[in-house]
Amino acid sequence: METTNVKAYGTKAPDAQLEEMTITRRDITAHDIEIEILFCGVCHSDLHTARNDWGGTVYPAVPGHEIVGKVTRVGSGVTKVKAGDFAAVGCLVDSCRTCDSCKQDLEQYCLNGFTGTYNGKDKHLGGTTFGGYSEKVVVDEHFVLKVPANLDLAGTAPLLCAGITTWSPLRHWKVGKGSKVAVVGLGGLGHMGIKLAKGLGAEVTLFSRTPGKEKDAFNLGADAVIISTDESQMNSVKGKFDLIIDTVPYVHDVNPYVGTLNISGTLVLVGYLGGLEPILNTVPMILGRKSVAGSVIGGIAETQELLDFCGQHNIVSEVEVIPMQNINEAYERMLKSDVRYRFVIDMASLKK
Amino acid sequence: METTNVKAYGTKAPDAQLEEMTITRRDITAHDIEIEILFCGVCHSDLHTARNDWGGTVYPAVPGHEIVGKVTRVGSGVTKVKAGDFAAVGCLVDSCRTCDSCKQDLEQYCLNGFTGTYNGKDKHLGGTTFGGYSEKVVVDEHFVLKVPANLDLAGTAPLLCAGITTWSPLRHWKVGKGSKVAVVGLGGLGHMGIKLAKGLGAEVTLFSRTPGKEKDAFNLGADAVIISTDESQMNSVKGKFDLIIDTVPYVHDVNPYVGTLNISGTLVLVGYLGGLEPILNTVPMILGRKSVAGSVIGGIAETQELLDFCGQHNIVSEVEVIPMQNINEAYERMLKSDVRYRFVIDMASLKK
Repeated sequence: METTNVKAYGTKAPDAQLEEMTITRRDITAHDIEIEILFCGVCHSDLHTARNDWGGTVYPAVPGHEIVGKVTRVGSGVTKVKAGDFAAVGCLVDSCRTCDSCKQDLEQYCLNGFTGTYNGKDKHLGGTTFGGYSEKVVVDEHFVLKVPANLDLAGTAPLLCAGITTWSPLRHWKVGKGSKVAVVGLGGLGHMGIKLAKGLGAEVTLFSRTPGKEKDAFNLGADAVIISTDESQMNSVKGKFDLIIDTVPYVHDVNPYVGTLNISGTLVLVGYLGGLEPILNTVPMILGRKSVAGSVIGGIAETQELLDFCGQHNIVSEVEVIPMQNINEAYERMLKSDVRYRFVIDMASLKK
Repeated sequence: METTNVKAYGTKAPDAQLEEMTITRRDITAHDIEIEILFCGVCHSDLHTARNDWGGTVYPAVPGHEIVGKVTRVGSGVTKVKAGDFAAVGCLVDSCRTCDSCKQDLEQYCLNGFTGTYNGKDKHLGGTTFGGYSEKVVVDEHFVLKVPANLDLAGTAPLLCAGITTWSPLRHWKVGKGSKVAVVGLGGLGHMGIKLAKGLGAEVTLFSRTPGKEKDAFNLGADAVIISTDESQMNSVKGKFDLIIDTVPYVHDVNPYVGTLNISGTLVLVGYLGGLEPILNTVPMILGRKSVAGSVIGGIAETQELLDFCGQHNIVSEVEVIPMQNINEAYERMLKSDVRYRFVIDMASLKK
């Protein structure tokens, strides 16, 4: 198979800085789309993968799965977009397409394992998939999204991971007008959760551990901010919420949040992978038919639905645009939560 | 308010045996129904309350909330039943009737606290409510159920707690034809869970820690039995179930069962009140959109729906009928799980 060399930014070891490197992209097949990448969001998963925090990273590793760009070439069988269109790619570039999950447009739960946009098994070239910190990407059209014309392209990039990760539970648990939704944590995911829940017509509350985020939260659309370390504030929302989206990425006590769920309410974890400590108390769950659940990103059809919804409601992420060369500094700032609310790389910087 | 003395069986202290005693029942008000109790099921909650295992027991205590009997008198405003009809009473004899839960027929989740059939606050006479281990009971018609004529009365009694406790999650999580349901534990609740899930058209699996229950499980309607301590058997049902009803009443590891849930599946705890140890791992929950939930008994309308369903499908509990005088021995046998599957007291024995 013919390949093209493209410039990228990646890392060769867990403790190495990201640096410019050359990777190869396959030539387009009949169902492929080649995209010139214009913007790529910076997700915490990028950092975890670069540094092998979860194990399993194959080096060199090129992160990036919040990709927005312009279509440069399409295969002969492609109908979704044409050269010149804006297009996007999220966390998935392939899946088995035959299992029960794939048949239900739940590619993120592919029973045979989806192909991640980076650090996945490359079915075409062998080796590992490389992500969006690069000039171009070639992706099967099924996994390419169309971008509404009115949206800011930099602000659109984080919709592909931070956006869909909060959108999917909002839709699965049927949030709409009159729903009472809370979001735990005001980061890349949390700020999208507020915007999207508000866009769906819900009454939205932010849970924050410390004061000082009220103004930002209200500007994003929150109706209330509750300081989770303040017992009287927590008591004031006891039994209130139909859905809580918990975006906190480290171990934390979810029991106080369960107490703020309404009868039949659900707390959905989207940020923390690990054991629930302190231990979860089943008493309020049983006496109030409450659920603790998990959710990961979203399917392709659902991601398109999100982009279309954002187009209609003119919703994008709040971003700080950086040049590719500043990625190592950006990772350090992310570790200190020093970003409002998502770094997005202007990929034009890579051409310099 | 006029009262009537009736014979009952109760206990005066946590470490005392149950013995015959006299209690009072109120005279009927316009909306009350007086029932001569014919059968009363014996629930684990009876034993826990008698012995103050959960704290909060007021003595003397008269347990019993699986009540089936014959209507003897009705108040002037009663339309639901007439003297001579068979009727039933479950775990609730009152609730606020005005909160969001009550307005949705979810009296079991009454936000102001429902009135338990025993050890609840008696709104009419003051003091504590007395349960079904007695000759008669007087209950507001809203909390009285009609009993289908074709059902065995002794076998019907356990539907009022064991039955509705498994029915409510089956209905809430929309089990029907083609659903794959598992039940953890084959006791009073578990055996009803199998019968009811099967009645709804589901494919039903029993999880059991030890071999030997296959024949009983198949007779009750189970399609398969999986020994939960056998790793290869557990692997054979990985990702299978839409709903798991976990009836185990003591602390146990639910993580292996979460692994047998299908994408978007739910494990609902109905037996164990306490902390989840070993700690719950969120990884499979997030990567498969799985939920861990709780549920308690059911609402009055839902209980009537259950009784009507059981009438149509001729489903009753498997019971061992005992005289009232054998209750202390029955409690000891329950503690050893030596019952298939529910003791039911023939209340005629109390007249002797």
